[in-house]
Amino acid sequence: MNKEFTHLDEKGRAQMVDVSEKKVSKRTAIASGKVKMGKNTFRRLVDNNIPKGDVFNTARIAGILAAKKVGGLIPLCHPLPVEYVGIDFKLLEELPGVEITATASISAKTGVEMEAMTAVSIAALTIYDMCKGLEKGIEILEIKLLEKTGGKSGHWIRDEIET
Amino acid sequence: MNKEFTHLDEKGRAQMVDVSEKKVSKRTAIASGKVKMGKNTFRRLVDNNIPKGDVFNTARIAGILAAKKVGGLIPLCHPLPVEYVGIDFKLLEELPGVEITATASISAKTGVEMEAMTAVSIAALTIYDMCKGLEKGIEILEIKLLEKTGGKSGHWIRDEIET
Amino acid sequence: MNKEFTHLDEKGRAQMVDVSEKKVSKRTAIASGKVKMGKNTFRRLVDNNIPKGDVFNTARIAGILAAKKVGGLIPLCHPLPVEYVGIDFKLLEELPGVEITATASISAKTGVEMEAMTAVSIAALTIYDMCKGLEKGIEILEIKLLEKTGGKSGHWIRDEIET
Amino acid sequence: MNKEFTHLDEKGRAQMVDVSEKKVSKRTAIASGKVKMGKNTFRRLVDNNIPKGDVFNTARIAGILAAKKVGGLIPLCHPLPVEYVGIDFKLLEELPGVEITATASISAKTGVEMEAMTAVSIAALTIYDMCKGLEKGIEILEIKLLEKTGGKSGHWIRDEIET
Amino acid sequence: MNKEFTHLDEKGRAQMVDVSEKKVSKRTAIASGKVKMGKNTFRRLVDNNIPKGDVFNTARIAGILAAKKVGGLIPLCHPLPVEYVGIDFKLLEELPGVEITATASISAKTGVEMEAMTAVSIAALTIYDMCKGLEKGIEILEIKLLEKTGGKSGHWIRDEIET
Amino acid sequence: MNKEFTHLDEKGRAQMVDVSEKKVSKRTAIASGKVKMGKNTFRRLVDNNIPKGDVFNTARIAGILAAKKVGGLIPLCHPLPVEYVGIDFKLLEELPGVEITATASISAKTGVEMEAMTAVSIAALTIYDMCKGLEKGIEILEIKLLEKTGGKSGHWIRDEIET
Repeated sequence: MNKEFTHLDEKGRAQMVDVSEKKVSKRTAIASGKVKMGKNTFRRLVDNNIPKGDVFNTARIAGILAAKKVGGLIPLCHPLPVEYVGIDFKLLEELPGVEITATASISAKTGVEMEAMTAVSIAALTIYDMCKGLEKGIEILEIKLLEKTGGKSGHWIRDEIET
Repeated sequence: MNKEFTHLDEKGRAQMVDVSEKKVSKRTAIASGKVKMGKNTFRRLVDNNIPKGDVFNTARIAGILAAKKVGGLIPLCHPLPVEYVGIDFKLLEELPGVEITATASISAKTGVEMEAMTAVSIAALTIYDMCKGLEKGIEILEIKLLEKTGGKSGHWIRDEIET
Repeated sequence: MNKEFTHLDEKGRAQMVDVSEKKVSKRTAIASGKVKMGKNTFRRLVDNNIPKGDVFNTARIAGILAAKKVGGLIPLCHPLPVEYVGIDFKLLEELPGVEITATASISAKTGVEMEAMTAVSIAALTIYDMCKGLEKGIEILEIKLLEKTGGKSGHWIRDEIET
Repeated sequence: MNKEFTHLDEKGRAQMVDVSEKKVSKRTAIASGKVKMGKNTFRRLVDNNIPKGDVFNTARIAGILAAKKVGGLIPLCHPLPVEYVGIDFKLLEELPGVEITATASISAKTGVEMEAMTAVSIAALTIYDMCKGLEKGIEILEIKLLEKTGGKSGHWIRDEIET
Repeated sequence: MNKEFTHLDEKGRAQMVDVSEKKVSKRTAIASGKVKMGKNTFRRLVDNNIPKGDVFNTARIAGILAAKKVGGLIPLCHPLPVEYVGIDFKLLEELPGVEITATASISAKTGVEMEAMTAVSIAALTIYDMCKGLEKGIEILEIKLLEKTGGKSGHWIRDEIET
Repeated sequence: MNKEFTHLDEKGRAQMVDVSEKKVSKRTAIASGKVKMGKNTFRRLVDNNIPKGDVFNTARIAGILAAKKVGGLIPLCHPLPVEYVGIDFKLLEELPGVEITATASISAKTGVEMEAMTAVSIAALTIYDMCKGLEKGIEILEIKLLEKTGGKSGHWIRDEIET
């Protein structure tokens, strides 16, 4: 096995990977996560009387802004001027709760996995924040990468059995 | 039931809660989350040859810095000059993976739940970032509030059955 | 007349006002501004087929976030952990366009005029950004303080004739 | 008419435009705005006894810094590493007040209109901030794009009659 | 000797000091530093033909803005809404170069030493940046705390022999 | 001599250099600085009982994050998405204290000298912050550029006699 902790040098010190010699390629990443809440909160959230748009738009905006700040949030990430970030929400009756999916893309020397993962995380935290007056126990779960394309390692699709 | 979406006004528009008339009190919040990885990655992470300190210290610093930026990340949160943020990591053989616990405290007019939740989330994303060269499928799960004290709603402890 | 450029010292050098000896008081500020567009763009914006909510909610979130960043944007402003920021939009058929009103409040040693003014400005720029694909010539106008309360200078209400 | 709200998807949800497939071209944008004040304030500002340089240099620095932060301020804007931002001030006796002009340029996949517009807005707010001790009623007006070059839509010059 | 590394816990892990139980007091800190350059660069900088004001005002603004961002720059620092930051420059013929002095003050639970030290550092880097086209070898030296007041440890004045 | 203050225009006003017409080339910069402390503090820092890793890792992370923020800290710097930042520490018995070296690299139209210089400065301030509970008089000294490559001005190596 020749994979390594790319963010640790030979002496185990944290390091940023030097990508200055890598080639630019088109890269995308898709990540998802869930926000699980009680039935009452979910009912209120999906209820017609409630302006779901503002909750989800606020979470979307927060996630998009966070994707643009990844270089300032995740210490060893390269700052990347992302070229697209999109966030979608799906109501899950059976959870009950919300599923969040984020897609990021860029033409760059390194990938946008962290942009997609961070967008999901901050969107989830924003939903938590907006609903916590109703239910403090809401939980964020299953934040994970679904797919990535581009770069030397090429196309990767999550194999649910893998982990 | 008289709880409300405090972040939506009567017309359902997103709003920041006006806390200017609230009283200052000492507040704390504790949140936790998990990072679940494959056995190989976990083995490498706990292996004596690997400088775990730098992975965890980097994640701790990222989480602390993020807690200080909550007002800029979560749109309707009040900017709070936090007075303490602490982050601990515990290796979980059975997951396998890492459990992250964050504690935040402040004397203020509103609580620090989001500071604790955000610190956990960004620390988890940082661990993901540092290990993703080994395993892209690593998953972040169970980010949740464990306890809060202070403020009008007083002491709240998570009841695991609740959600 | 004994008013002074409080942000210039006796030698005319830019300075931050020292408020460390001032007393904390409840302060509020209200500012407004307008975004003027062509009839076609306005028609599209108010049209039932168009999800106005997302335009205005996005502008509201941008304005609220900007109010929280005033200390980092306006060089000599004190960083203030604002306790409330609210932003409202009103469609003006006769302009045609949108009127933006922002209210900020805090208990602090100095006022929140800049928070209200900045919230209006960034909300207006966000509307411009979201509509500029339709009409690049959209104009932002009449950004001004309407009212402030609190502090040594007390209650001030805009006298339209004054300027 | 085939122009669209590029920042809203087919369901009217806020979105960032995906520019990853667009071509890089040299782009520039010029925007302007005005700060209108009372005669007394204007007299003090232009008076030889007053160090205008520091007021205008402070506003220039604020505007340049803001242009570099557009991706973090305007939610759906692409983060762009601007390659030039210049800001000029002109005293207008007849207003009386100050005219601000900002120019931004970059070689990128998308334009720098928002960088120029934001630079003008924050420079104007900084002048307001530095003069508000003399006159709270100072007004910011006529923030607008004057010209842009580059990109698919090519050269655009403001036609004053248009709006 | 009972002084400790306050930023390391008993196991040597980095930590933020919990100040939530400390008392608010008025605190000030003064720091200084020097920028040493060649005679030619110094001559150009002090020459009447050169607008020194803009170099020094730009450095002053950069230093003040940096003092407001200390919580985001220095990982274990408490975010403090500083109430005053002032920066002065003195030309030193004998160095030759510039001496920078920064003063910060606040009423808070913890001190503003880092705000004063950071203001000096960023002001010095800004002077370096503005002069590096003339001389890349310019050096920043002797950044140090001169004095602090307030807090449990009280008044401290630098004893030049101490270090 | 035809070198100029590139950050001042012909009227001496602060300006950002327009690099939009420059060519992209691979650029690197190396800078260094020192933190000088008393013998007792140095002894504690190097003592086996003390987890030096966390002090130095925290300083390294702070320096790397700061290098990514240079465009927001140094007013006239171009925002550059750095492709590598590395920071090393060396214990100097004879000072006594710590020597910090930072390397930055990028393929861009302008150099990364400020990224390397800023990384050193913020890493030094972080060490000061973590040790100031033991010794407030610790001093930061000799922050300077050691070497740069790339760009029109080509390879530059510090000539210690020069300044």
